[in-house]
Amino acid sequence: MQVGILGASGFVGGELLRLLLLHPNTEVTIATSRQYERDYVHRIHANLRGFTDLQFSSPDIDQILKQCEFVFTAVPHGSALKVMPTLVNSGIKVVDMSADYRLRNAKDYEKWYGYTHPHPDLLEKFTLGIPELRKDEIKNSDQVSAPGCMAVTSILGLAPLAHSGIVEKRAIIDAKVGSSGAGTKPSLATLHAERYGVIRPYQPVGHRHTAEIEQELSAYSPEFEISLSAHAVNIVRGILCTSYLTLNRDYSVQDIWKVFRSFYDGQPFIRFIRDRKGVYRYPDPKILVGSNFCDIGFDVDRDRRHLVVLSATDNLVKGAAGIAIQSMNLMMNYEETMGLMLPPIHPV
Amino acid sequence: MQVGILGASGFVGGELLRLLLLHPNTEVTIATSRQYERDYVHRIHANLRGFTDLQFSSPDIDQILKQCEFVFTAVPHGSALKVMPTLVNSGIKVVDMSADYRLRNAKDYEKWYGYTHPHPDLLEKFTLGIPELRKDEIKNSDQVSAPGCMAVTSILGLAPLAHSGIVEKRAIIDAKVGSSGAGTKPSLATLHAERYGVIRPYQPVGHRHTAEIEQELSAYSPEFEISLSAHAVNIVRGILCTSYLTLNRDYSVQDIWKVFRSFYDGQPFIRFIRDRKGVYRYPDPKILVGSNFCDIGFDVDRDRRHLVVLSATDNLVKGAAGIAIQSMNLMMNYEETMGLMLPPIHPV
Amino acid sequence: MQVGILGASGFVGGELLRLLLLHPNTEVTIATSRQYERDYVHRIHANLRGFTDLQFSSPDIDQILKQCEFVFTAVPHGSALKVMPTLVNSGIKVVDMSADYRLRNAKDYEKWYGYTHPHPDLLEKFTLGIPELRKDEIKNSDQVSAPGCMAVTSILGLAPLAHSGIVEKRAIIDAKVGSSGAGTKPSLATLHAERYGVIRPYQPVGHRHTAEIEQELSAYSPEFEISLSAHAVNIVRGILCTSYLTLNRDYSVQDIWKVFRSFYDGQPFIRFIRDRKGVYRYPDPKILVGSNFCDIGFDVDRDRRHLVVLSATDNLVKGAAGIAIQSMNLMMNYEETMGLMLPPIHPV
Amino acid sequence: MQVGILGASGFVGGELLRLLLLHPNTEVTIATSRQYERDYVHRIHANLRGFTDLQFSSPDIDQILKQCEFVFTAVPHGSALKVMPTLVNSGIKVVDMSADYRLRNAKDYEKWYGYTHPHPDLLEKFTLGIPELRKDEIKNSDQVSAPGCMAVTSILGLAPLAHSGIVEKRAIIDAKVGSSGAGTKPSLATLHAERYGVIRPYQPVGHRHTAEIEQELSAYSPEFEISLSAHAVNIVRGILCTSYLTLNRDYSVQDIWKVFRSFYDGQPFIRFIRDRKGVYRYPDPKILVGSNFCDIGFDVDRDRRHLVVLSATDNLVKGAAGIAIQSMNLMMNYEETMGLMLPPIHPV
Repeated sequence: MQVGILGASGFVGGELLRLLLLHPNTEVTIATSRQYERDYVHRIHANLRGFTDLQFSSPDIDQILKQCEFVFTAVPHGSALKVMPTLVNSGIKVVDMSADYRLRNAKDYEKWYGYTHPHPDLLEKFTLGIPELRKDEIKNSDQVSAPGCMAVTSILGLAPLAHSGIVEKRAIIDAKVGSSGAGTKPSLATLHAERYGVIRPYQPVGHRHTAEIEQELSAYSPEFEISLSAHAVNIVRGILCTSYLTLNRDYSVQDIWKVFRSFYDGQPFIRFIRDRKGVYRYPDPKILVGSNFCDIGFDVDRDRRHLVVLSATDNLVKGAAGIAIQSMNLMMNYEETMGLMLPPIHPV
Repeated sequence: MQVGILGASGFVGGELLRLLLLHPNTEVTIATSRQYERDYVHRIHANLRGFTDLQFSSPDIDQILKQCEFVFTAVPHGSALKVMPTLVNSGIKVVDMSADYRLRNAKDYEKWYGYTHPHPDLLEKFTLGIPELRKDEIKNSDQVSAPGCMAVTSILGLAPLAHSGIVEKRAIIDAKVGSSGAGTKPSLATLHAERYGVIRPYQPVGHRHTAEIEQELSAYSPEFEISLSAHAVNIVRGILCTSYLTLNRDYSVQDIWKVFRSFYDGQPFIRFIRDRKGVYRYPDPKILVGSNFCDIGFDVDRDRRHLVVLSATDNLVKGAAGIAIQSMNLMMNYEETMGLMLPPIHPV
Repeated sequence: MQVGILGASGFVGGELLRLLLLHPNTEVTIATSRQYERDYVHRIHANLRGFTDLQFSSPDIDQILKQCEFVFTAVPHGSALKVMPTLVNSGIKVVDMSADYRLRNAKDYEKWYGYTHPHPDLLEKFTLGIPELRKDEIKNSDQVSAPGCMAVTSILGLAPLAHSGIVEKRAIIDAKVGSSGAGTKPSLATLHAERYGVIRPYQPVGHRHTAEIEQELSAYSPEFEISLSAHAVNIVRGILCTSYLTLNRDYSVQDIWKVFRSFYDGQPFIRFIRDRKGVYRYPDPKILVGSNFCDIGFDVDRDRRHLVVLSATDNLVKGAAGIAIQSMNLMMNYEETMGLMLPPIHPV
Repeated sequence: MQVGILGASGFVGGELLRLLLLHPNTEVTIATSRQYERDYVHRIHANLRGFTDLQFSSPDIDQILKQCEFVFTAVPHGSALKVMPTLVNSGIKVVDMSADYRLRNAKDYEKWYGYTHPHPDLLEKFTLGIPELRKDEIKNSDQVSAPGCMAVTSILGLAPLAHSGIVEKRAIIDAKVGSSGAGTKPSLATLHAERYGVIRPYQPVGHRHTAEIEQELSAYSPEFEISLSAHAVNIVRGILCTSYLTLNRDYSVQDIWKVFRSFYDGQPFIRFIRDRKGVYRYPDPKILVGSNFCDIGFDVDRDRRHLVVLSATDNLVKGAAGIAIQSMNLMMNYEETMGLMLPPIHPV
């Protein structure tokens, strides 16, 4: 299948290119970038040198519709809005990596993103692309919106609990994220000398991913409320979300295990990490590099009914390109794991 | 004044040596280490080469009492127990860096440390060495116990709130710490190749510092309760504690500012960090390297009465050697800031 | 094909396991470790959780010979000596990852490793496993010795020049290496807090890899001499070798290009990196993570006939497990690239 | 003494501010920055919060001349040219941190910097500010030019050898540098996600510091020739230069020691690092953080008369702000070490 990537010069674009090279059924034939038009893809994504002779092209929707059966839109937030009506009307299958079609309620865009959504009617056509939660919907969708990286990492840790009803309807999420999540735009804040070695709170309250997370969790438990704080830490790739909840009565470790295991039964990309020995006794993005897994673990202070859930991903794979390809597989009726069952690289 | 350091080969010992070199009134004349007996101090603390010709000596309390007016005990937890009765009886002034005399209630040692404290009567002689909270007590003490690094960082962020009564009596503390806090003992978990690049939850519930933190906060607000989760991140030096609290009614940012400012009025080592512009808008250990400050900031989601407090320190200075010297200054009637008013090094 | 790994708990063992999981023709059925006997492989190689239920077993040569057609020996230097006679006599195909069979001249073991080689007669049976240089020999060998990571990285950069005769017969090699090359044994030198942030010269002269490098280069240019200095830098995975040579007359960039291109014509795992634009204008292990490539580049100061060659690898793949599997492919008559054509992961 | 800093918003400016705060005889009263005019200095140099209420001002030479006795020019290369005639004519003492007055021969600016120097007559007024080499000259100068960070680190390692005549007149210098040396200008190359984890050759031949290095070494040994290659490594602060030389006959370690020790006898900021035990057996910028030392060590392969010299500095201190203040001390007849005898911080 010929695939196009709109906005292919960023980190998410690069990761889509890397993963689609490993996918047996896809060939990327169009990768767009205004800034790098006519440059070789491997000049920007230098890791791909030797794997592709593709050149960036200027975005041209007609060309994509003519040539491709599937398109990923990895353009900045706000830019997807401009091309989406054409793409949707054409009937081409699309996974949008931006935030522009993640929320179902147009008013939420006013609240969280500060703009009036220009195509509120398109919002309901999109399915949020978390295959572990919406497999059948995604299979039947032509339009999928990939979730934010912090959102998917949090949601996968919390959905089983929201669904089970064993917790109070509120979670505090403390997210720690690597620098690749901030994209490729240089600034003083992302300069190596300033960004290296930080533990930098960058959004203690009011993070936009709040909207997605509450939207999804409320599907299991109406009006489930979260408070999200994000911190930049000194790695490039990876997210850990530590979520704090209150059990609504005294549940044992076994009870909680049961909730997680039954909820994710048969899901190929969920791993449970909880060991008494060894170095990696809880989820840690260190052991997820390059892979499409979400690792989940927890611990509990029964005296205080205090539950700590740990969920980790590689933000560019399960948090972006990998989960998008997982959705693509479902939308195309390929095997869900096709091209994605890659063991993480360790140690890096 | 001649000073001895019992247990001087670890990171805390090294930092005491570095800072006492800069102190106008002290000279370290004894630095003990069984392992490195007779080795030059600068072979282990290689940064100090050229600053001292001191050699490690085997611990010899008599020699210390004969030669020194002041002693820091930086031995491992459990080891301070053995020497403390002699030191206390001798009347020498001491700051203990271990956990052995931090808790006032002997029963807490059974609960949190798993041993029966051999000298419960000595516990009440010690003052917890947080000068911002117990200045007068420390001045009048001959025995001070320096707090744990996560404890002091959390407590300084939370004490004004516990004191003010504007929050509910419960905090969730998410701590992120550098590797120097784990000490100098090699293991697979601390091997560079395994420890580099992690966001590793290492104690989601049940951390021992819980006892100290609750003890201190309860002095302001009885039965104040905390839940502490600790994470190892990819830096060597520094701690950030993100604490989550619930305001007991709708307070404004100004109200909360007032609580912090009035509580810490005139404290030389507290800085408030809360800016709208620039890279460092909240506390971050990156801008604290080598210094004795605790940086404090906060943000609030008024709709949910959700308060996020951020407190950061250099774990080896304000979290260990620096705060201990600050206590020494008070105990010796020196100026509180003597030898400690060092600007942080940036960028590192 | 069933494969055994003798000594599977280290980083090289883990990387063999990861890569063989991706190989269509192999199944690892035995992975030995005395230390972790009966532990699940994924407890130590936590990245592999979900990919294998293999448990470590105590080394048992009979069992390997009965069950496996191919064996990798990834035991410490010196330990391969003990098992090799049995393995060689049995006729099983083997790639040895240790240094024990890399040198052809038994006397070199006395000089560089300080021991008398117990089976000098076995040395000639082994081929040094650098497929770019010894493809036919490897195809016809049952015993291959994988080169050291610094050795292979240097040799691949220098062999075309030694072969061409355009340089004087001497190179100075300045190697910069990540911490995974030092193995899994904890020590103060490899403790995160001590190893992080270093640029640490650890063997300015006399490095053992000198012997392998001179042996291989002398095959092209007798008595080619090198001086190797190794430095530890603050990454986990990767090696860069900067080699300094003197051109024996004034050659242009095009002349030198021609030497490299003709020498490596058709080699699937050599990439040339030399660009005028972009961030990655020379080889850098950053763009090689997880891959089996050796990236090569150079620059020249014609006035001084000074040639700088840059060669980079992922030390655990092209420097260890990947090159060993590449040899296995040749020894088994599989396609050389089978299971190895993986794009590097970027950014990490 | 009132001091001005022209161009105070970069890393060198920040480090000058930090160190001058610790200096007993100086007060910085003017710190200029066009970009941040009227912003508080501590908004950009966030580490200095609490230490200064200075605000950046627009550059105004008259104001500086009226108010200050001493000025540091830390503006970008090329910009110092514009202000220097006025400063020199005024008679104010100045240390220039740019490259604009480092070379004595105006033609070298054409060759290495690509411009015709507008004030070749001023060049001879400047002394290159390496106090270990030109103490008396600096004492008698009103204009000093601080050397480049790689230059000073190399030169201090090589000058004793050039002076002694025990080596051939050629050195190959392999420099490894942290990101702070690249300044504060954001770009894709310095973005954390792209700059983190690299071993990136960025100037294998033709580095501009070559000119300074050859100029200084030729003062000891005419026509001494060097080839410099620079590599970016994954730290922020620090430089290691590994220099390769050929002994002109078989000298012992003791012979070489003697050369170094006699050359640097009594120099307060030179440390020799060469130990058989311990983690830090050679120079490593890890143990120099925040300090004004240059650490020097070496090793020798006598069979090949191959000498490896290792020299390390903190590039922002001994490589920039510290060495400039050391020159200021000499120019002002203060004690050479005043305000600079700070032990390095370890571990960071």
